[in-house]
Parts: sequence; structure tokens; C-alpha cells
Amino acid sequence: MPAQSNLKPVLTAAEINVLMDTVYPQLNEQFKYYQAIDVFPGGCIVRLNAGARHLRPGGTVSGPSLFTLADIGGYVCVLSHAGPDALSVTVNLDINFVRKAEAGPIDGHCRILKLGKSLMVFDIDIVGPDQQTIAHATGTYSVPPKRNGDAVK
Amino acid sequence: MPAQSNLKPVLTAAEINVLMDTVYPQLNEQFKYYQAIDVFPGGCIVRLNAGARHLRPGGTVSGPSLFTLADIGGYVCVLSHAGPDALSVTVNLDINFVRKAEAGPIDGHCRILKLGKSLMVFDIDIVGPDQQTIAHATGTYSVPPKRNGDAVK
Amino acid sequence: MPAQSNLKPVLTAAEINVLMDTVYPQLNEQFKYYQAIDVFPGGCIVRLNAGARHLRPGGTVSGPSLFTLADIGGYVCVLSHAGPDALSVTVNLDINFVRKAEAGPIDGHCRILKLGKSLMVFDIDIVGPDQQTIAHATGTYSVPPKRNGDAVK
Amino acid sequence: MPAQSNLKPVLTAAEINVLMDTVYPQLNEQFKYYQAIDVFPGGCIVRLNAGARHLRPGGTVSGPSLFTLADIGGYVCVLSHAGPDALSVTVNLDINFVRKAEAGPIDGHCRILKLGKSLMVFDIDIVGPDQQTIAHATGTYSVPPKRNGDAVK
Repeated sequence: MPAQSNLKPVLTAAEINVLMDTVYPQLNEQFKYYQAIDVFPGGCIVRLNAGARHLRPGGTVSGPSLFTLADIGGYVCVLSHAGPDALSVTVNLDINFVRKAEAGPIDGHCRILKLGKSLMVFDIDIVGPDQQTIAHATGTYSVPPKRNGDAVK
Repeated sequence: MPAQSNLKPVLTAAEINVLMDTVYPQLNEQFKYYQAIDVFPGGCIVRLNAGARHLRPGGTVSGPSLFTLADIGGYVCVLSHAGPDALSVTVNLDINFVRKAEAGPIDGHCRILKLGKSLMVFDIDIVGPDQQTIAHATGTYSVPPKRNGDAVK
Repeated sequence: MPAQSNLKPVLTAAEINVLMDTVYPQLNEQFKYYQAIDVFPGGCIVRLNAGARHLRPGGTVSGPSLFTLADIGGYVCVLSHAGPDALSVTVNLDINFVRKAEAGPIDGHCRILKLGKSLMVFDIDIVGPDQQTIAHATGTYSVPPKRNGDAVK
Repeated sequence: MPAQSNLKPVLTAAEINVLMDTVYPQLNEQFKYYQAIDVFPGGCIVRLNAGARHLRPGGTVSGPSLFTLADIGGYVCVLSHAGPDALSVTVNLDINFVRKAEAGPIDGHCRILKLGKSLMVFDIDIVGPDQQTIAHATGTYSVPPKRNGDAVK
């Protein structure tokens, strides 16, 4: 399938983890539950280290925890490809849950479908340790307008 | 717009809050952040008492917190209308974020669009204290099969 | 549920039907299959007069025909509330099919959830002659920028 | 990204085109506008040969035409992998439109995310002649129950 490999990241995964800890401390209060693992042209990989607090009745990872991973995947796509403006917001997110997942590392493989002037559209495959798809989401983020060229410095 | 007013709840809002605290303690660790406010034929009202832990960069209520409210709205619809089987799961949820919201009480007005044998479809208007729509979601829950008639006792 | 009743339409249903026939003749080649029935502050009603060409295997109204009705509902919302610029485009549309429908008049009740400067979000209840919900959709349309004030004349 | 390559098709693309012409003649009244191009384990490719009847104001391929391609992509996934029961129906479809497309061949690359006993979830990348993504959709189809083993013979 076509990738937007002509896109060029402006931040690395490590830079994004520092940025997320600064601007969004509620996300990872004590441990790195959610983190960026990799950033590459046209996409990124994000991870949820799912523990007890991420489980729902039945002992499986909750829908809100997987939604959060998808939402962060889009956030990392915007931050890494349009610049570190923390105020990008989610416009829409559609998620399908297709298999149950137990606690453990859960990876989200994100792909930018379109990076426009005001909107970014992405999708994400969320996979468990056995490489089976657990969930799939598609979302739209607003892209903040460039402010005097300081957005991507 | 048409409501499914022929549907008949089998649990009250108070019974559902007790059930959620029992089967899903992670949701409301210390305080009642998320709760059912009302249950009526064909729908329910759920509330998020949004505090600091629900905010994202910019000081507005985060997408995952609003997603969780939508997801709980669907869960309360299933529990209240199909019986207290905690293992119903979300199949799909699509959410649009249309306005920012500050901390405070945020209500979700849920409507069951279809309660079938195996799936329930609902939508939810999420509104802030000023009665403006903050977000709207549509979702599908699996409905567990009745087990020897004990599901709704 | 909250309505955006502070919004003020700038076109009537009749004006919109003339406009759609002019700019989108493919839609209603011989007969008025799709038409605007009513426009009111914050929403509109659109109708599909479903005939043989709108049926799928099993003799029920096809998904694409109902999607088209939802898409037109959003288009009528934009045209009627932001002005007659035919170049508004759909950004996203999510549709749930909840009951089968036979040929006949099918109405879509549309509600504008947010009319912003660049995006409009709406939802639509699609109901059959028996007033049961057949489908529900939520969508986002781009709103064309005003061009020297001539967009709404 | 993970594919469901353990799935095994039970029909070829050619068999599906014959089946679609038989059960759904409205789709391709005079010409093969919509057709299956390829079927492989875990997915398929479908094509829209977009002409004047598929255009919307502005001369670009209409949303309903692309929705129909996405819907058919899911239909071909179900038919090819669960057997030729024409009565599978779409439960939900979410589509994002990311670029405009002119008339010409438009391909949909479909991937089955989950083939369960009662539901199939798939996604589709819709690409134009220049291999740019035009739209992306995710959908859910009902899978008809097997009837005395005759569904796939």
C-alpha cells in the first residue's frame, strides 16, 4: 500500500518523549506507560506498556487505553512531521476493536495518509506481542498554523 | 428524531454505579469521576466530573477522557437494557470533537439506535455546563448471549 | 439534546434543490430521487425516494444509496447555512446501518453539531416510513473560505 | 503491518465478478464500472473505472462513488473468504477523503483485519493512477451463518 515516504520528520522519538512528559504529565504519571518508539518518514511507532490500570472487566486491555494509544500515535505523527506545537487537537477518531489483549507491550504502527495545511489524517494498526491486530483506528488531527516560522525550529 | 422508547430498562442508574465500581474499579479509583446519572427507556445520561487528571495540553478536557465517557455511555446502555453482564465489549466507536471544554461536570446524553440480539448501536451528545455540544460519538457494543435466562435476574 | 438553534439559514429547501440540479445533475438524472424537504435553523431534512436502482441483493435499499442521502444531508446543511458554494467537500463520514429498508420515501433528519470557520460537523438520523431508524451517520464537511463576501449573496 | 495471511480465499476475482453481475445488476448497468481485480489470502483489490456519472461538482470523483468502491471492497472480502452468500450486509463504514481524484481507474487495496464468526472487519486504501491515497475507509460486514455447510461449496 502507498506510503507518504516523501514526508520528512522534524523530531526524533526521543525528542518527542521529552516533549510529551513536559506538556502532558498526566499521561505517564509514574512510569512510561505510553511512549514513542520510532519515527520515520510518513509515520511512527508508539507503545503502551499495559498494566493493571489499563485493564477492563475480563482482564483485557480497555478500550479507552487503546483509544489513548491511537490518539497518541496521531499526536506523535503531527509533532514529528509538522513541528512541536503542543496545541494540535484531535478532530475525529474512529476505532475498531477486533481482538482481546492481555497486559504487556502493545505497539501502534502509524501511517500518515495526508499531511495538509490544516488537517492531518492517519491510521494505526494496534498489535499485541503475538503480532495479531488488536485494534485499528483512523483519525484526523488539526495542524496548527505556522507562527512566524517558529513552529519547527 | 425517533427514539427507541419501546425499550425497557432492567437496571437503574444507582444499580449501575454499584456494578461499575465492583467490576471496573480502575475507572474511579478515589472519586466518582464517571457515573450514571439517569436511565430511561431507550437511553441514559452519564457524567464525567472532569478534574486535573482529565486535562490535556492547553488545559482542556482530553480526548481520551471524552472517549471514556462515550464508551461508558454505551456500556450503561447495554447494562441497563440488556442486563448486567459485565463482559459486553465495544466493537467500534467513532468520536468527533467539536469544542473545547474546561474542567467541571460534563454530561453525555445517550440514545440507543438499535438493540439487536448480538449488537447494540448508540449515539451520545457530550455537552458542557453551558449546554454546548463538546463532542458527539456513535458506537457499537456486543451484546452477550443470554445464558439460561440468568443474564437479567 | 442541544441544537444549534442560533444558526441562521441563508437558503431555502427550494433554492437548494434548484442549485443541486444545476451543479450536480448526475444525482437525479430523470427523477427527483434525492431532494431537500426542509431547512431550519441548525439543520435540515433530506429525502431519498428509493426505487429499483437503489436496491441491493435481498431487495433492501443499498448502503451506497443511504450513504449518498447522508452525504447530501451534510451538503444541504453547508449550502443552507454557509452559503451556496458548490465546492464544499466531505472530509469524513461514518455510517451505521441498523435496520433494513424497502423501496419508498426515506427521510434524513440532519443536525449541525458545529459550524466553524473551516469545518462543519453534522449528524443525520435516517428513518423509514414507519419512523424506525434505518441508519445513522456523522460527517465533516469542509467550509469554503468566504471570497470577498460573494459566497452568501 | 500484520496481514491475516493465514486466511484462505474460497472464490477467485473472476468468480466474484460473475456473482456480482448476477446478484447486484444495478451496480454495473452497462459497463463494468466496479469490479474485482485480484483476490489473495487476507485481502483483495477492487477497481472503479470512474466516468462522468461518478463525478461531483468540480469534476472530481464523488464521495458516494468512492464509498461504493469501499463497500464493494468489503463485500468482495466477505464473498471471497467466507463464501458466496449474497446477503452479507454492511454494519458500519467510516471513510476519510484525503485528496481529489479525476476520472479514470481507481483501485482499492483491501485488507481483512478480522474474520470472525459473525463479523468481518476490513480496511481499504483507495489510490489513484499516480499511486497517491485518495481515500481510506474501515468497515464491518456481517458474516451470514453457515447453512448446513452449503455456503462455500
